[in-house]
Amino acid sequence: MSNFSDSDRAHMAAALRLSRRGLGNTWPNPAVGCVIVRDGLVVGRGWTQPGGRPHAEVMALRQAGEKARGATAYVTLEPCSHFGKTPPCADALVEAGISRCVSALTDSDPRVSGRGLERLRAAGILVQNGLLADQARAHNLGFFLRVEQGRPLFTLKTATSLDGRIALANGTSQWITGPEARALTHRLRAEHDAVLVGSGTVLADDPDLRCRLPGVDPRPVVRVVLDARLRMPPDAALVRSAAEAPVWVVTSDAALKAEPAKVNQLTIAGIEILPLSDPHDCHAVAAALGARGLTRVMIEGGGQVAGSFLQAGLIDRAVWFRAPKILGGDARTGIGALGLTRLSDSPQYRRVRLVTAGEDSVEFLERKI
Amino acid sequence: MSNFSDSDRAHMAAALRLSRRGLGNTWPNPAVGCVIVRDGLVVGRGWTQPGGRPHAEVMALRQAGEKARGATAYVTLEPCSHFGKTPPCADALVEAGISRCVSALTDSDPRVSGRGLERLRAAGILVQNGLLADQARAHNLGFFLRVEQGRPLFTLKTATSLDGRIALANGTSQWITGPEARALTHRLRAEHDAVLVGSGTVLADDPDLRCRLPGVDPRPVVRVVLDARLRMPPDAALVRSAAEAPVWVVTSDAALKAEPAKVNQLTIAGIEILPLSDPHDCHAVAAALGARGLTRVMIEGGGQVAGSFLQAGLIDRAVWFRAPKILGGDARTGIGALGLTRLSDSPQYRRVRLVTAGEDSVEFLERKI
Repeated sequence: MSNFSDSDRAHMAAALRLSRRGLGNTWPNPAVGCVIVRDGLVVGRGWTQPGGRPHAEVMALRQAGEKARGATAYVTLEPCSHFGKTPPCADALVEAGISRCVSALTDSDPRVSGRGLERLRAAGILVQNGLLADQARAHNLGFFLRVEQGRPLFTLKTATSLDGRIALANGTSQWITGPEARALTHRLRAEHDAVLVGSGTVLADDPDLRCRLPGVDPRPVVRVVLDARLRMPPDAALVRSAAEAPVWVVTSDAALKAEPAKVNQLTIAGIEILPLSDPHDCHAVAAALGARGLTRVMIEGGGQVAGSFLQAGLIDRAVWFRAPKILGGDARTGIGALGLTRLSDSPQYRRVRLVTAGEDSVEFLERKI
Repeated sequence: MSNFSDSDRAHMAAALRLSRRGLGNTWPNPAVGCVIVRDGLVVGRGWTQPGGRPHAEVMALRQAGEKARGATAYVTLEPCSHFGKTPPCADALVEAGISRCVSALTDSDPRVSGRGLERLRAAGILVQNGLLADQARAHNLGFFLRVEQGRPLFTLKTATSLDGRIALANGTSQWITGPEARALTHRLRAEHDAVLVGSGTVLADDPDLRCRLPGVDPRPVVRVVLDARLRMPPDAALVRSAAEAPVWVVTSDAALKAEPAKVNQLTIAGIEILPLSDPHDCHAVAAALGARGLTRVMIEGGGQVAGSFLQAGLIDRAVWFRAPKILGGDARTGIGALGLTRLSDSPQYRRVRLVTAGEDSVEFLERKI
C-alpha cells in the first residue's frame, strides 16, 4: 500500500471533480479526470470529452505542454493501454515525460486491467495506485457495472407526496413537486446516458424526457421506452421528437411480428426498436442496454417499472423528490408491489445527501452492498 | 406599533426558549417564559411549572427578588389578570416594582384578553406588546386552539419507508425506523399533553406509549385510544400500565351500553371512558379532548386514524420519520384514503425542519394556513 500525502489527496479529489463533467456524455467509455502537477503547481487539467474522446490524460497533457516533463499525473482510472480509436494514454504519458503517475484504481476493462500501469512502470515512471479508489469507483460505477456485469447502473428517480404517491386515484399528477425539482431533474438527465420509462407513463403523461438546461446545448440523452405490446401512440411527444434525440423502444419479439405497420411507423420516425423474447425480464432489458454501451440509465417511471427493477435488484441509486403534501392511501403509488414477507428482504439504501429544492426535499440514496 | 431594540428581541427569544420547557407539562394552561432584565443584566428567568403553576412570571420574580424593582419583564404571553388557583401575575409584576413590560402577544383567554396589560398600564408600567408575536403564537398554538376553537393542536407522527409504508402486507412492522428515531419519539411525547392511537394499532402492536427519557422521571403523558367498539384486550400493555400513567378510551355510547363488563374491567384498571355518540367524528373527538383541557395531542397511528384526522382538516403539524428502505405498493400505507379528486385539495404543509436521525430522516411540517 502506497503512502499518499495530503497534497496527493487534494489533487486526486480535484481530478475526481473534473471527471464528473463527463458523466452522461462519455458512454460507452468511463468519465475520467486528470490533473498534472509540477513543483506543486497544477499545469494541466483534463476530463473525458463528449463522445468519450479525447481521453482525460490527452486533454491534460495538451494543456501542460512542455511542463509535463518531470511532472506527476493524477488520474481517476488507470490510463488505457490499447489502441482504440485513439492511441493508448499510457504511451502519451510516457512520451510527454511524466515521471510519476498516481492512479485511483485499475480498469476492469479486460483490454486494460493493469496493463496500463505496467506499461508506465516499464517506461521508468513511478506508479502509485489506489488513492481515493472507493470514490473513483463510485463515480464510474456505471462503467464498471457495464464491464463487469454487462449492464448499466440504474438510478430510480421519483417525485412523490410525503406518503409516497405520484398521482390521485383519478390520475391527476401535474404537478406534485415544484419548478426547482423539475429543474434538478434536467440536470440529473444530463448526468445519465439514458432515461427509461414504461409505456404506461407514455400513455398517461406523454412526456418528452429531453434534457434541457438553460444556456447549455440540449444533451442527446437516449430515451428508452419499455413497450412490450407497442402501445406507444404514433403522435406521442417521444415519437415526434425522435429525429432530434434518440429514442429506443424495447419490445417483444411477438409484438414485432404482430405489428409490422406500427414498427414501420416508429422506424420511419427515427426510433430504434430493440426486440427481446421477454421484455418484462428486467435482467434481459439491462443486458440489452449494456450491450449497446449504456453505462448510466435513469428510470423515471412509472410505479410498475420501478417495482420490477427493484424486485430484480437492479436499482443501484435513487433520487427521491418529495413534496410537502399528503395524497392519501387511495392515491397511486410511486412503487409497484414487491411481494415482501420479511422486512430484511426490503431493498435497503444509504442516504448520501438530503437537501431541499424549493418547497420539496430531495434524497440521494445508494444501495447498501 | 412599538419599536423594539435588538436587545429586546434577544431577551424575548430567550423567554421563548424557556417557554418550550413547559410544553406537554402545563395543560390546560399555556407554556409561558419570562425573563427579567435590569440595567442590561438578566436578573430572573422563569417558565410555567409542571401542572401549569406557578406561572413563569412568579418564578422569574422569585429569582430576581429586590432586583426586579425598576426592571423590564419580557413575557411570551400577556400576564394573567384573574384570580385562578394563584393570584394574578399582573399584580405580582406591579408589586415587585417592574417598570416596563414587553409582551409577545395578548392572551385569547376571555378571562384575560388584554386586561392583564391594562392592569399593568393602570399601575404606571410602560407596556409594549407584539414582539415576536408569530413565534409566540406558534409556541403556544395548542393553547390558543383550545381557547379559540375548543380543540387541541394535533401533531401527526409517522414512521414510514421511503414509499410511505408502515408495515408489510402480512403486518410485519418492527422495526422500520432505527433506535435514534425511537428515542426522538419519546422526546416528542414529552412535548405533548397526550398521545392518541386507534384500537387497530393497539390490537396490532400492543404499544405502551409511555414517555421514557433517560435520566428524566417518566412524564405522565395521557394515552388516548379511539376504540368505538371497545375492542381493546383487557391484557393490553395500555390496560396493564393504566395505574401508572393516564389512559383515556374514547368509545361510543352504544358500546358503553352493550359492554358493561368490559367497561367495568377497564374502569377498575384505572382507565377513563369517554363516550361519544359518534367517536368516528374527528371533530367530536377533538372537542371532547379540548373540553378536558388537552392542548397538544400527538397522533401515533394507525393509517385510518391519520387519514380521518387529515380529512377533517385537524392535522396542524406532522413529524415524519423515514427509513431508507422501500417496502412496495403491496405494503400497508401510513395514511388512509383521503378521497381527493383535485391536487389542490390535498393537505399541504410547510417543511420547517429536515434532519437525519441515525439512518433515518425526520421532517417537521406545519400546515400551510
